[in-house]
Amino acid sequence: MPKTPVTVLGLGSMGSALAGAFLAAGHPATVWNRTASKADPLVARGAHRAGTIEDAVRESPLIVACLTTYEDTRAVLEPASLAGRALVALNSGSPAGARRMADWAAERGARFLDGAVKNIPSAVGAPDTLLYYGGDKAVFDEHVDTLRVLGGDTVHLGEEADLAALYETAVGGTLLPALVGFFQGAAALRSRGLEAETLLPYATKWFEMIISVLPMYAKEIDTGDYSDPAASVGIFHAGAAADLELAEEGVDVDWQRPLHDLVRRAAEAGHGDRSIAVLTELLSVGAEGSSTTAKRR
Amino acid sequence: MPKTPVTVLGLGSMGSALAGAFLAAGHPATVWNRTASKADPLVARGAHRAGTIEDAVRESPLIVACLTTYEDTRAVLEPASLAGRALVALNSGSPAGARRMADWAAERGARFLDGAVKNIPSAVGAPDTLLYYGGDKAVFDEHVDTLRVLGGDTVHLGEEADLAALYETAVGGTLLPALVGFFQGAAALRSRGLEAETLLPYATKWFEMIISVLPMYAKEIDTGDYSDPAASVGIFHAGAAADLELAEEGVDVDWQRPLHDLVRRAAEAGHGDRSIAVLTELLSVGAEGSSTTAKRR
Ligand SMILES: NC(=O)c1ccc[n+]([C@@H]2O[C@H](COP(=O)([O-])OP(=O)(O)OC[C@H]3O[C@@H](n4cnc5c(N)ncnc54)[C@H](OP(=O)(O)O)[C@@H]3O)[C@@H](O)[C@H]2O)c1
Ligand SMILES: NC(=O)c1ccc[n+]([C@@H]2O[C@H](COP(=O)([O-])OP(=O)(O)OC[C@H]3O[C@@H](n4cnc5c(N)ncnc54)[C@H](OP(=O)(O)O)[C@@H]3O)[C@@H](O)[C@H]2O)c1
Repeated sequence: MPKTPVTVLGLGSMGSALAGAFLAAGHPATVWNRTASKADPLVARGAHRAGTIEDAVRESPLIVACLTTYEDTRAVLEPASLAGRALVALNSGSPAGARRMADWAAERGARFLDGAVKNIPSAVGAPDTLLYYGGDKAVFDEHVDTLRVLGGDTVHLGEEADLAALYETAVGGTLLPALVGFFQGAAALRSRGLEAETLLPYATKWFEMIISVLPMYAKEIDTGDYSDPAASVGIFHAGAAADLELAEEGVDVDWQRPLHDLVRRAAEAGHGDRSIAVLTELLSVGAEGSSTTAKRR
Repeated sequence: MPKTPVTVLGLGSMGSALAGAFLAAGHPATVWNRTASKADPLVARGAHRAGTIEDAVRESPLIVACLTTYEDTRAVLEPASLAGRALVALNSGSPAGARRMADWAAERGARFLDGAVKNIPSAVGAPDTLLYYGGDKAVFDEHVDTLRVLGGDTVHLGEEADLAALYETAVGGTLLPALVGFFQGAAALRSRGLEAETLLPYATKWFEMIISVLPMYAKEIDTGDYSDPAASVGIFHAGAAADLELAEEGVDVDWQRPLHDLVRRAAEAGHGDRSIAVLTELLSVGAEGSSTTAKRR
């Protein structure tokens, strides 16, 4: 069977990796980027360079956009005729942003999927790289073989166009905080002349530990039963002062303060002996009156 | 060889697990807790209940304390005679707190090790459970077989008594932020009637991804070369608005603000095209003038 022609819009780190994966899998690929020179390495590998966005969209039934934001994507696509095209947006963004993007695509007559690449550019194309999509299931089914070129773990979450962005933000919300935690640790070691590399075996084990306790927390959250804690709000509350004392090692710890405020609020609300997962209730806005919600679930 | 008698002070979730592991391994174990009733299950398993802290310390050459803080530990040990005892503190705390504890122990004639259990109570005693220690190497060598009962991955980091607390805070600083990120995601899903459990496969992959990129970040930090980013400050900066839009899903996102401020400050300082690991420089207080430090390392 001939491989579906694909157009990739946006050739930043991620877009270039996407286009490269389509080329490697033998798909005719058309590429377009605002800064045209970024297409050069892909053209050298056989990609077709579109001179205009109109041409880029005309070349392929499947358009994969990977610009910085949905707004950038709409701005770029404005002049193009999208009727009947399958448009896949793979930038990061909020669920609300994905809903706006889906509405816009529908108005333009495009069939729309919103997706997220849950990995770094160098992992694109690997068998265990995860991408998930929300939106038009017919489009997904039609192009799933092509989309799977980008990562073997390709999933359709549901018909709602914002589901990928919802899971993306739900899952991805741990990245910056986890990294800043790691960077803070590296800064603390540096103050003693110790290399960040010496943190790696411990940080790796630690994240593996975090992975291992997530099912327990998910269960507590889904049942609303926080009464048998492996790690209580009180223990985190007691540890807050020590966390902030890291400042004595020449490290800026101020980014932690709202986290500790959250723990303190939970302790003050009488959750001291309950699981730290009870913070989920505080993070659900209107959580005060939502014990019914917790019970209903 | 007869097993070394051990005294465990503090029988909270963690202290009880520690005492239980010593009992399971056949060590004569003396236990003491402020709330005496918490010793009951351990006494039923063969532990000796000390009536007073003085008795508790007298019973064993090796004293393992696992109270909430160093301050609690000192308060409890005040009446006891510590001369010649090997005292091991396994509570969490700051490096500065560990230094104060070590000074206090030295004044009292105790030989001191400060350690950290890098796992949850139910993992105590498992072959791959990590505990690390800083302080008197002779004490560590003398009692390493006993200490290894608590976790097969038992490590001495160095003679400085605050090293375990330093690594503990350096590594552990990712826990609360990572968990709050996960809880926020669960709260976002809940707003749509989706269970936290549906996050698990994705969150697991995501943390595995984070683990896989840490060596790259450590290298950037240790070499001071942030010029070839897999994920740039600019990309995180562009994503900040979307992260905060999660508020539209009924989630409190305010705890993220200082993280985004940090990213914005990095972008404004001209680091937009550099790796996000450059945040380490901003977190090192006095980082402005520390490029020499970065070069020296
Ligand atoms: N890199 C990753 O690890 C990663 C992982 C998962 C998801 N993502 C997401 O993928 C998306 C792209 O990331 P990236 O790493 O490829 O970013 P990048 O390297 O900064 O590239 C950004 C791309 O967007 C284009 N662009 C931005 N604003 C534009 C505008 N107003 N008009 C036209 N083109 C515009 C840029 O064009 P120019 O070349 O002309 O500037 C470039 O092609 C982001 O939403 C990001 O969050 C990235
Ligand atoms: N649980 C974990 O997952 C975990 C993991 C790693 C490290 N840790 C660390 O281990 C330490 C203990 O944690 P935990 O989970 O066992 O806490 P916990 O269940 O809250 O127990 C706290 C213990 O400290 C005692 N205590 C506190 N203040 C005291 C005082 N002023 N005087 C006398 N006793 C006092 C308590 O005695 P009462 O019973 O009389 O209140 C209890 O035995 C903490 O530093 C914690 O950060 C815990």
